Amino acid sequence: MNKIIECIPNFSEGRDKEKLEKILDEIRKQEGVKLLDYSMDKDHNRSVVTFVGDLESVIEAAFNSCKKATELIDLRNHKGEHPRMGATDVIPLVPIKNVTMQECIEYSQKLAKRIGEELNIPVFLYEKSANSPQREDLSNIRKGEFEGMFEKLKQEEWKPDFGPQIPHETAGVTAVGARMPLIAFNVNLGTNDIEIAKKIAKAVRGKSGGFKYCKALSFELKERNIVQVSMNMVDYTKTPLYRVFQVIENEANRYGVNVIGSEIVGLVPMNALADVAEYFLKIENFSYDQILENRIYGD
Amino acid sequence: MNKIIECIPNFSEGRDKEKLEKILDEIRKQEGVKLLDYSMDKDHNRSVVTFVGDLESVIEAAFNSCKKATELIDLRNHKGEHPRMGATDVIPLVPIKNVTMQECIEYSQKLAKRIGEELNIPVFLYEKSANSPQREDLSNIRKGEFEGMFEKLKQEEWKPDFGPQIPHETAGVTAVGARMPLIAFNVNLGTNDIEIAKKIAKAVRGKSGGFKYCKALSFELKERNIVQVSMNMVDYTKTPLYRVFQVIENEANRYGVNVIGSEIVGLVPMNALADVAEYFLKIENFSYDQILENRIYGD
Repeated sequence: MNKIIECIPNFSEGRDKEKLEKILDEIRKQEGVKLLDYSMDKDHNRSVVTFVGDLESVIEAAFNSCKKATELIDLRNHKGEHPRMGATDVIPLVPIKNVTMQECIEYSQKLAKRIGEELNIPVFLYEKSANSPQREDLSNIRKGEFEGMFEKLKQEEWKPDFGPQIPHETAGVTAVGARMPLIAFNVNLGTNDIEIAKKIAKAVRGKSGGFKYCKALSFELKERNIVQVSMNMVDYTKTPLYRVFQVIENEANRYGVNVIGSEIVGLVPMNALADVAEYFLKIENFSYDQILENRIYGD
Repeated sequence: MNKIIECIPNFSEGRDKEKLEKILDEIRKQEGVKLLDYSMDKDHNRSVVTFVGDLESVIEAAFNSCKKATELIDLRNHKGEHPRMGATDVIPLVPIKNVTMQECIEYSQKLAKRIGEELNIPVFLYEKSANSPQREDLSNIRKGEFEGMFEKLKQEEWKPDFGPQIPHETAGVTAVGARMPLIAFNVNLGTNDIEIAKKIAKAVRGKSGGFKYCKALSFELKERNIVQVSMNMVDYTKTPLYRVFQVIENEANRYGVNVIGSEIVGLVPMNALADVAEYFLKIENFSYDQILENRIYGD
């Protein structure tokens, strides 16, 4: 059985291509790992890297890229729009194939321990790996950012899970954790009234009473003169895309507005789309095992 | 670039498991090939086998399994409900990944030539490989079945594409051809009125004015006291599932009947389901390349 996990480290360097390349090389050189994607954001001064592979190889590549980022990135000089607390800001691990969430959690602990001990960086376990509810949400951990970590870590409640209780002088603090695949799903409304998008985002957002695994914001798309409900679907197995989509359609209709389109930003797991097809076609007794590609690459 | 095709040979033996196993062994022993599925049907006295692999390996396994079937199956003693003309009745080749239809056609010609010359079996090229419109449809070629082939092949218009102009004494005649993946898609109606299913099947069936790449029949599901529109979708890229499904819903509504469910029998390509999700969620600018699994197994 071929076990595959995905790793999506976020590095606090979005401008210097040469530095990012050196970090990427640490991933590329690792056997058993495939680099799928990376994107640099100049405004955020941050890069998001995606790679997959077996558990051991992914952990090895994640550690080596984090080590390289520690050598190359100095947060004391870092400015960007996106909040950040570390040179390697966050390392999520996602189960993809023949891997349980529990295995991902165990490997996130191994990785966090190594980064803490060998690189001398304080590490917090977050999301499914979190040791307290307060640490599940990355934004709680990152609050105060790099500059505020020196004071924050002195508090007993913010003692890191691994590594020293003082931030790394130049590389700060890192979060490592297992989570479900995240789907960036945006729905476009046939209106320029941002108030309607705000109300709908609120209706579907878990925090305000909507779907538990849906995070939602509203945006104006000025070039198209429309508004958008922009979502992160953080567990499509429990909050499926079609259900949220249809609630958005219903809420929009209430204001006499149509859903005019949607977009998926980045990657989406095949099964998340299969769920949508299964729902709308009312397929009975469907099994993921009926998908040809699952059989071809099944083990 | 990893090229993958699928091969789904139909053998005229659905009762003797030992014989089928010997045929399957010819596929299993072939390097570069993966046996995905097989099913024996006693009433039809026929087995359908599915395997995938690279072009050369698939052709090799197809030839060897056909050779073994020629040794083991004697059509002079064969009885079953399903029409048949050969021990290896038909060998479809389907492009799956990084393979064009043209390549599949070329390899179907190679395979047909080898079966004709080395096994002394007359072979017809059908579907996309057909050399005349009359030979596109397998049922035209097979008309008369094994028993009628001895007379049929004497006609100039039914001269085989490869091999002798006389059927193989025990193994008859074989058809080989490239085709698109076929999806067996059935839609269940909330009525036991077979006339409604008949009318709807007629409405969506290409032959009677419906969708070109949809073949449709109507059935009673007596145990559930409902009726079904049973379809073969023979090119989902040109006649997508969602479009046919919605026409069935509309036609059913006309008679005050609901679609209560559907089923996909056997395997379905991932992209066929992605198309359904893309349609119903109104996804803009979607690319198959955004499917995580396509990236992982991409080349």
